[in-house]
Amino acid sequence: MAGEFSFIAWLRNRTVGQANMLVGPGDDAAVLAPSSRRQLVTVDMLMDGTDFHLHEVGAKAAGRKAMAVNLSDIAAMAGIPRAAVVSVALPRSNGRAIGEELYIGLQEMAAEFGVAMAGGDTNSWDGPLVISVTLLGEATSRGPVLRCGARPGDWLLVTGPLGGSIRGRHLTFTPRVREAVQLHEAADLHALIDISDGLAADLNHILEESRCGAFIQADEVPISPDAVELSRTSGKTPLQHALGDGEDFELIAAVDPADGERLVREQPVPGIALTKIGECVEAGLWLEENGERRELPPTGWVHAL
Amino acid sequence: MAGEFSFIAWLRNRTVGQANMLVGPGDDAAVLAPSSRRQLVTVDMLMDGTDFHLHEVGAKAAGRKAMAVNLSDIAAMAGIPRAAVVSVALPRSNGRAIGEELYIGLQEMAAEFGVAMAGGDTNSWDGPLVISVTLLGEATSRGPVLRCGARPGDWLLVTGPLGGSIRGRHLTFTPRVREAVQLHEAADLHALIDISDGLAADLNHILEESRCGAFIQADEVPISPDAVELSRTSGKTPLQHALGDGEDFELIAAVDPADGERLVREQPVPGIALTKIGECVEAGLWLEENGERRELPPTGWVHAL
Repeated sequence: MAGEFSFIAWLRNRTVGQANMLVGPGDDAAVLAPSSRRQLVTVDMLMDGTDFHLHEVGAKAAGRKAMAVNLSDIAAMAGIPRAAVVSVALPRSNGRAIGEELYIGLQEMAAEFGVAMAGGDTNSWDGPLVISVTLLGEATSRGPVLRCGARPGDWLLVTGPLGGSIRGRHLTFTPRVREAVQLHEAADLHALIDISDGLAADLNHILEESRCGAFIQADEVPISPDAVELSRTSGKTPLQHALGDGEDFELIAAVDPADGERLVREQPVPGIALTKIGECVEAGLWLEENGERRELPPTGWVHAL
Repeated sequence: MAGEFSFIAWLRNRTVGQANMLVGPGDDAAVLAPSSRRQLVTVDMLMDGTDFHLHEVGAKAAGRKAMAVNLSDIAAMAGIPRAAVVSVALPRSNGRAIGEELYIGLQEMAAEFGVAMAGGDTNSWDGPLVISVTLLGEATSRGPVLRCGARPGDWLLVTGPLGGSIRGRHLTFTPRVREAVQLHEAADLHALIDISDGLAADLNHILEESRCGAFIQADEVPISPDAVELSRTSGKTPLQHALGDGEDFELIAAVDPADGERLVREQPVPGIALTKIGECVEAGLWLEENGERRELPPTGWVHAL
């Protein structure tokens, strides 16, 4: 880890001592304490022009998002995030100011979830801003929740309204880290995933790994006000936005019907509304509307609904 | 970790089961076994046009280098590499072929050092190829070797000839992972670093962290044939190349004089020649030539030698 830039120096100066980080930046590798829990590791790379528009949103929002999408991946395993390393390619023009703002966005989000910024690699180049965050975490004592445990009959729950995140939530969302752990304590989760690609696409990831199918009940899908607003001009329905848009970073959980019934009735997780959107079946991905089931492409882009 | 591309699919298909990887790609995060050893984590980002020229060297060489520079960082802690996650931004044009070659280069280097490719994030964009590798490892039972333990009187050893790596070795070098562990078993290493920025610059990193100084004995620095070759046209001396070029990925170790004397005499590490290049002193960075000490800038760019 070498950086011609001062990112590392900020890390060194600003990172407060954290129990799980023994040696921070300033060495070739960060040193973390041993852990008796299973380790989780996830990485996401964000690029200016693809995942955000730097000149519109600023580097702080980009940094926040880069950390938050990784936190969401740890949430999707019902894990506890611990430490992050960050590599960046900063544009040569205005790179220092961009780096500083970026760091603030990364650090604020990390601090909110008890994540130590353990190290990084800072580069500058003639290209657009690129940020890669690797987040290390650990499973709780209940173990990580994978995508592969859903079975026919399971209820499918989501943690919040969907669609239209491009209007702003894709930058400002709060990853469901605490909620996932609380949910996992409240019930045995068979499968879990965060909605990054879209409700239909990410549900399909669960189905592929679990080798089963599912139907979504059209009138049960919680629609975000952003989806309604976007539908005024997009030529798509609010439901299409909710099924296909992605970057909601809410969770989809598959649970036993008895657990599902109880979770929906008791709403044991503060701050989120658990909603049943459908059930697992033997095979296929279906949308049920007005008592009729039609095949739903994993893109969620259902035309002529 | 989401990828619109098949990188993840290759990982899933090609990654052989490894004891320390419980769940691989295909989930939101990879799951690794607990470890009672201290954990090491390092990240390096490589960009086309900066760290390699894709059209000249090809994506396989780029992938190899991206894994190897991270292995070198783990070597610099005398650690044992375990698992890697990789994020990439592939150029849209020819992205699939580039991704496949890249993967082969990454995987071959990983396999050579027993590293599990645990997951990744694949993106494509209109920009040049960007690769970020995060490597997880663990310390041996002797603990990680940091940069901060050198003290006045210590001998400074290097593991091989230096300079001119740009002629090819910066792509083809073998990271000193095994050698570092063997060296750490053979003697108590006070400080250790790999030469990425250059002999003078990286030695200076040790000195800063250890709060001491050092002199380098000009006629003891092992000069690579590449440095000699390069000096024919570069306007610099072979020694200047050896001091300043960087990307040699050899190691600098600071050891007790008695250990240093023994290591140089016994050469306990197969495949490398341990050479004394100088000693630590109270303060400053010096080059000693013909019995005279002059200040050496950490850039290694000493003019008018």
